[in-house]
Amino acid sequence: MKPLALTMGDPAGIGGELSLKAWLALHEAGLAFVALDDPARLERLARDQGLAVPVRPVTDAAEAAGAFRSALPVLSVPLAAIPLPGQPDQANANAVVSSIEQATKLALAGTVGAVVTNPINKAALYQAGFPYPGHTEFLAELTGATGQQIMMLASPMLRVVPVTVHASLRDSIAMLTTEMIVAASRTTAAALRQDFGIAAPRLAIAGLNPHAGEQGALGTEEATLVQPAIDTLRAEGIDVSGPWSPDTMFTAGARARYDVAICMYHDQALIPLKTLDMDRGVNVTLGLPIVRTSPDHGTAFDIAGKGVADATSLLAALQLAGALAARRGA
Amino acid sequence: MKPLALTMGDPAGIGGELSLKAWLALHEAGLAFVALDDPARLERLARDQGLAVPVRPVTDAAEAAGAFRSALPVLSVPLAAIPLPGQPDQANANAVVSSIEQATKLALAGTVGAVVTNPINKAALYQAGFPYPGHTEFLAELTGATGQQIMMLASPMLRVVPVTVHASLRDSIAMLTTEMIVAASRTTAAALRQDFGIAAPRLAIAGLNPHAGEQGALGTEEATLVQPAIDTLRAEGIDVSGPWSPDTMFTAGARARYDVAICMYHDQALIPLKTLDMDRGVNVTLGLPIVRTSPDHGTAFDIAGKGVADATSLLAALQLAGALAARRGA
Repeated sequence: MKPLALTMGDPAGIGGELSLKAWLALHEAGLAFVALDDPARLERLARDQGLAVPVRPVTDAAEAAGAFRSALPVLSVPLAAIPLPGQPDQANANAVVSSIEQATKLALAGTVGAVVTNPINKAALYQAGFPYPGHTEFLAELTGATGQQIMMLASPMLRVVPVTVHASLRDSIAMLTTEMIVAASRTTAAALRQDFGIAAPRLAIAGLNPHAGEQGALGTEEATLVQPAIDTLRAEGIDVSGPWSPDTMFTAGARARYDVAICMYHDQALIPLKTLDMDRGVNVTLGLPIVRTSPDHGTAFDIAGKGVADATSLLAALQLAGALAARRGA
Repeated sequence: MKPLALTMGDPAGIGGELSLKAWLALHEAGLAFVALDDPARLERLARDQGLAVPVRPVTDAAEAAGAFRSALPVLSVPLAAIPLPGQPDQANANAVVSSIEQATKLALAGTVGAVVTNPINKAALYQAGFPYPGHTEFLAELTGATGQQIMMLASPMLRVVPVTVHASLRDSIAMLTTEMIVAASRTTAAALRQDFGIAAPRLAIAGLNPHAGEQGALGTEEATLVQPAIDTLRAEGIDVSGPWSPDTMFTAGARARYDVAICMYHDQALIPLKTLDMDRGVNVTLGLPIVRTSPDHGTAFDIAGKGVADATSLLAALQLAGALAARRGA
């Protein structure tokens, strides 16, 4: 199997530490990955934090796969400045971006099976002139993706897709349309079939309002926006149900009846996901020509360099990327 | 200890069945309650569902307490029509209301320790001329309560207080004010001290927006509405924290750091509560001169009369009412 490509993320954050810890957890298990990172900084980090990780510069993915059992293979992306924990440095912005670009090129070329991204600091990249809202839009551009990209959060207990993101709650309601619900559901259903191996995925569509509007007494969007989306999707042969009352659709009994919850806003999706399983949530970008996952947390500048970062979510992201890539035959 | 008063709820719903099952679960444990209900209909229900519950009409709460070990004591509230499962009947609306009135009078007189209400069907009561939005407003009127009444949902894993309820998500955002957050928090802090035995309650105040607004990038209500409330409450000596990112404040680690979450809208409170513990959630009305709890579900007309209703939430409501009443010395 091809290795996965793991990006550097912001070198002032916990990404490097997580990459080292992921190698410790995985090097005997055979899920190989190659870090797009600065070998010298990873060696320093391993030494400073007392992590027994041999770092090995490699020149291509095949060499990385062969080396993985005995050392963390690194395709070199040199940093311009030595990173200080918790203090993002504009001088390193190009390297952060280059790591993502190179990983994506390897995935497009079929040399690696998937891209797994460590967390970036958007503010630092914006200051350096990065013109994309985040990873997803940048990856869409790099891969020439057509159509809509959406974020799925997946944990062993629950999969959720928020239809609206990156907006205040007020704006999320204002921007919500039937078309967005339909598009997100189509992309999700296709991804579950293609990448997750679910032949006939069951989508549970959430209502927007308390009790899904209670027949109009607590809001009308279920009737005006959500139900028309359900009708359209059902006519296309997609197995959808809803609009569900948001507060009861994430119980264990309810979760057993669907494969993914299509949610109307960020916290409707993220509250149940993180409440049920804070550590093992993985972000999967749907609608890209490549497989891409990432851990469901940020750069954690507050704990960077302290050796206490928890690699559970990155490990889950690597494992899920491996499974998705395998299903694509990558 | 005084018995608790348990109302009938809508007799076409699952209330009667739950009352019988609660007696079966509690009659040997010594947490006595008296049903304000129609003895003949309860006898019929017990016979039809094969529940071995002797029903004993009593004339006052003291007699009920004495009888509880050997039979379900009932203060008679006669129905006008034989109830049909799942089919609310206007003819019985007066009895439904009278059951609540009588239970409340007993609590005000100090004859019972608390009122526990079975679920009512609001639409049926409205049609019969009931002028209150729900139980809470009716109880406030009956008890001459001053100030604000609010709903707390309590389970063994989490307590939540939604600041806005009974409104669409859009309207909930529009109606939210600093004053509402302050008032709900004050009432909650007082209730936790007085009734829950928490000397210095810790209140976690949620943000409204994803990531609590991310310094204004995802909404401004944290700065304009929530933070001023926190400042006011803190100046009054109440232990408040926040505004917290809604998606990470309900993890096990986060929950250990507060006694109650003050939530900005219904589903922000109810999604985590029900996701964590669907069956044991109890509704507690704060700000009344009497103790009142209720199960956290509705009349469940769809399963009424089938013998499959789960009394877990009513049992939890009775047990919590007993604990709160004991702390008041009732």
